[in-house]
Amino acid sequence: MDDIEVEVLADPELTEPVFIEGLPGVGHVGKLAVEHLLEEFESRVVRRVYATEFPPQVTIEDGVAELASAEIHAVSVPATATDGEGEDGDGVDLLVLTGDHQAQTNAGHYRLTEAFLDLAEEFGVRQVFALGGVPTGELVEEPSVLGAVSAAEHVEPLEEAGIEFREDEPAGGVVGVSGLMLGLGGRRGFDVACLMGETSGYLVDPKSAQAVLVALEEILGFEVSFESLEERAEEMEEVVGKIQEMQNQQGSVPTDDDLRYIG
Amino acid sequence: MDDIEVEVLADPELTEPVFIEGLPGVGHVGKLAVEHLLEEFESRVVRRVYATEFPPQVTIEDGVAELASAEIHAVSVPATATDGEGEDGDGVDLLVLTGDHQAQTNAGHYRLTEAFLDLAEEFGVRQVFALGGVPTGELVEEPSVLGAVSAAEHVEPLEEAGIEFREDEPAGGVVGVSGLMLGLGGRRGFDVACLMGETSGYLVDPKSAQAVLVALEEILGFEVSFESLEERAEEMEEVVGKIQEMQNQQGSVPTDDDLRYIG
Amino acid sequence: MDDIEVEVLADPELTEPVFIEGLPGVGHVGKLAVEHLLEEFESRVVRRVYATEFPPQVTIEDGVAELASAEIHAVSVPATATDGEGEDGDGVDLLVLTGDHQAQTNAGHYRLTEAFLDLAEEFGVRQVFALGGVPTGELVEEPSVLGAVSAAEHVEPLEEAGIEFREDEPAGGVVGVSGLMLGLGGRRGFDVACLMGETSGYLVDPKSAQAVLVALEEILGFEVSFESLEERAEEMEEVVGKIQEMQNQQGSVPTDDDLRYIG
Amino acid sequence: MDDIEVEVLADPELTEPVFIEGLPGVGHVGKLAVEHLLEEFESRVVRRVYATEFPPQVTIEDGVAELASAEIHAVSVPATATDGEGEDGDGVDLLVLTGDHQAQTNAGHYRLTEAFLDLAEEFGVRQVFALGGVPTGELVEEPSVLGAVSAAEHVEPLEEAGIEFREDEPAGGVVGVSGLMLGLGGRRGFDVACLMGETSGYLVDPKSAQAVLVALEEILGFEVSFESLEERAEEMEEVVGKIQEMQNQQGSVPTDDDLRYIG
Repeated sequence: MDDIEVEVLADPELTEPVFIEGLPGVGHVGKLAVEHLLEEFESRVVRRVYATEFPPQVTIEDGVAELASAEIHAVSVPATATDGEGEDGDGVDLLVLTGDHQAQTNAGHYRLTEAFLDLAEEFGVRQVFALGGVPTGELVEEPSVLGAVSAAEHVEPLEEAGIEFREDEPAGGVVGVSGLMLGLGGRRGFDVACLMGETSGYLVDPKSAQAVLVALEEILGFEVSFESLEERAEEMEEVVGKIQEMQNQQGSVPTDDDLRYIG
Repeated sequence: MDDIEVEVLADPELTEPVFIEGLPGVGHVGKLAVEHLLEEFESRVVRRVYATEFPPQVTIEDGVAELASAEIHAVSVPATATDGEGEDGDGVDLLVLTGDHQAQTNAGHYRLTEAFLDLAEEFGVRQVFALGGVPTGELVEEPSVLGAVSAAEHVEPLEEAGIEFREDEPAGGVVGVSGLMLGLGGRRGFDVACLMGETSGYLVDPKSAQAVLVALEEILGFEVSFESLEERAEEMEEVVGKIQEMQNQQGSVPTDDDLRYIG
Repeated sequence: MDDIEVEVLADPELTEPVFIEGLPGVGHVGKLAVEHLLEEFESRVVRRVYATEFPPQVTIEDGVAELASAEIHAVSVPATATDGEGEDGDGVDLLVLTGDHQAQTNAGHYRLTEAFLDLAEEFGVRQVFALGGVPTGELVEEPSVLGAVSAAEHVEPLEEAGIEFREDEPAGGVVGVSGLMLGLGGRRGFDVACLMGETSGYLVDPKSAQAVLVALEEILGFEVSFESLEERAEEMEEVVGKIQEMQNQQGSVPTDDDLRYIG
Repeated sequence: MDDIEVEVLADPELTEPVFIEGLPGVGHVGKLAVEHLLEEFESRVVRRVYATEFPPQVTIEDGVAELASAEIHAVSVPATATDGEGEDGDGVDLLVLTGDHQAQTNAGHYRLTEAFLDLAEEFGVRQVFALGGVPTGELVEEPSVLGAVSAAEHVEPLEEAGIEFREDEPAGGVVGVSGLMLGLGGRRGFDVACLMGETSGYLVDPKSAQAVLVALEEILGFEVSFESLEERAEEMEEVVGKIQEMQNQQGSVPTDDDLRYIG
């Protein structure tokens, strides 16, 4: 196997596809968001990316092993009735990148991101959205969506869609594949935006994922049902409620151990 | 030395050899199992694999140094009297991979596994078994053997041989060379099965190794004496008994430090 | 992207430019010093160095992402009225290297330093100054500036400029890009000096940065206003004062946690 | 700079030189031993080996930086009056490898050792001695010297010189450059022996270094004065005495922190 190996599974004709990245990260916001898109719309895997940068690991489903990989799905999103911003009113084509792993080394993040951008280029992608979460350190009732872009000209249209741009936020910048999508993608001429839902950073956060998808709906002009995501959000709220109850009884604030990535 | 270097020690004629991997891992189950095969049957080393991915280390025996390596042994296993599933009733030829080390980096696991699969290919191997343990977190009286396979068609014949397939188990997938044997081997067209004996995860576990070998006997149609392995299992049970006695006196549960890899 | 990629932004004519390195390090002394030069004098970025050795990260300013990089700025420093040591009384041209990151691996430090020296060579640099701090473990009222050089002949002129050379100091040698500027730069024929301001090692230290710049003024014959740096130093002294007050109340010495990199 | 770079400083004619490795390790036994040889006999540096595998560091002596490196010294050891085992009674030529660093990665140890063996080959070396310490965990009054060799035929002549060979010792094998000198050197056809002085593992141990040199004297037929090494050993014994006194007063056993690498 080469350090990075791309398996071709399908080569559908796509119309100006928009690339959406949702690898694991803070609050699993990006991953939850893209998985919701894959559940709600018709899709198929078009590329699978294997890499020696992923953990040396297989997942097992029904006894059958699958090698650690990232997958790119082609998704056909129908246009909304009232809003025809998608190409020729036929909806919008997405290329959705997801997977269970980030790279395991610094240089690996760079190489994987370049591989993903190569594939985006191959499909004629111009516009890239990296979805993720931005940690606030506390539970957020109404998560805002923060933006970061590859070039200043993209700020205004996103602000119109409700994305917030705050001075020097996120303070630590953006790391991992999402960060490099902005950094490397921008240098290669893609129009890249990172949409980050506010999230505590302690919990898998379907509500924040929904906020990110609502923003994406607004930008790309489509509509998706949030029923299943709202159910998961309610489940999480019950979990949070129980934790808060326990804390009230103990008279103590939650520790990182109580809250870290329950989901 | 190249990053991976293969020393050729013998090139015997083998009939449809079956590749058995037993490198160190959870409970040393895989390594114990293949070492038992090498003790009980006639064998010789056919390949030695050196790698800069192994620790920079020599082992010393009778004052003479041997460089860290993995070894592939050719083993001729006679057919059982009552069961002639091996090729033309002459028993079965095995290629048994063992050694003292796993790779030290992620990418190293990928590269070493590819090297092992290259050697398997060279010998005309079609069927690969990766032997190992699956941690249960508690002492197991009657260890089951869990399976994971490279393709769904291999599930049924293994179930008939008593291997269990459980939904979404092992939960964390399979890691290291065993995992990649499944993942990379499957992609290269080998028929790969991973046989994992249940084991506490705290102790070197000869009983679990025996369970794995009993499953392998059933699948490949051979018989091996378990006397020496049963002796080691009894020794381990004495150790466990003493630990439990100590705990009862202390009224406490065993800590990881008490139990970790006693053997 | 290659492992190291250099973006050319400008190619000004420079007269025997002097290369000044000020990447992050002990007390941020080197970085504070070069940032002060960039604030006080006219400058422009001439090269930007991207590297897979930097963290996979973008910084966000006004919503726009910038990929982790090191930057080389061309700076024109006017000659002082009374002191014309700069080339033909026209002042001195500097190439100032700064950035937010050091390399993340050992080998990466070597490769990045070679890349920086390649750029220095390209601009016809002969003289290199690496600016940094040397940790003393305690607060320093009047920081001295220690020197280390690539060849013995450079000691005397620096001593005349007030740089101190002490036997076997710094005890642990010099590490990172500053150390390799000396080690690799010297081997390639550059005249390299490392100027290290004494600093506690616990705090961002503008006063130490000023001491280093005063030494550099003396060596290169220029004058810079220290007003803004002195303001920052006063702010830091207030912080230190408060910490010392807190300690006096608690009757305890400051722990590393109290003091580490407040700034 | 290449990953490994060899600087040629001299190319003296040497008669069947013996290669002696003494890089830092347990109790600094090997390093102390070879440094003693370099102090007592005429020598000059013939090769300097730079490597990106060494720390990114320079040492500073009298203000002048020297890049991290390993050095090979040619040493002419006169034959003893009473013992003429050296070539034609003229003494013995040594190539002594020393330095301040080991490689920083696994693969680096392999690559550096190969580079050292390349240089040994270039000088026509046949016999290699790797000097080091073997940790006993307690203070040793009369350190024995343990041996490990690249081939069984070398055991007997070393046993005659007083080197001890114990079954399965050292238990953990030999690691680092010394281990790979045995492992890689043996595979390349060198006659390699590792001589390991017993040492507590807690202290820099000149007495153990002397024991190793006494063994080497016996094997190669030379004589060296041990005065300065004995002085250092006495100094260390005073340190040890003070520590033991302190412990007696405290009624406690020494912790690792008390004893680790005082020297």
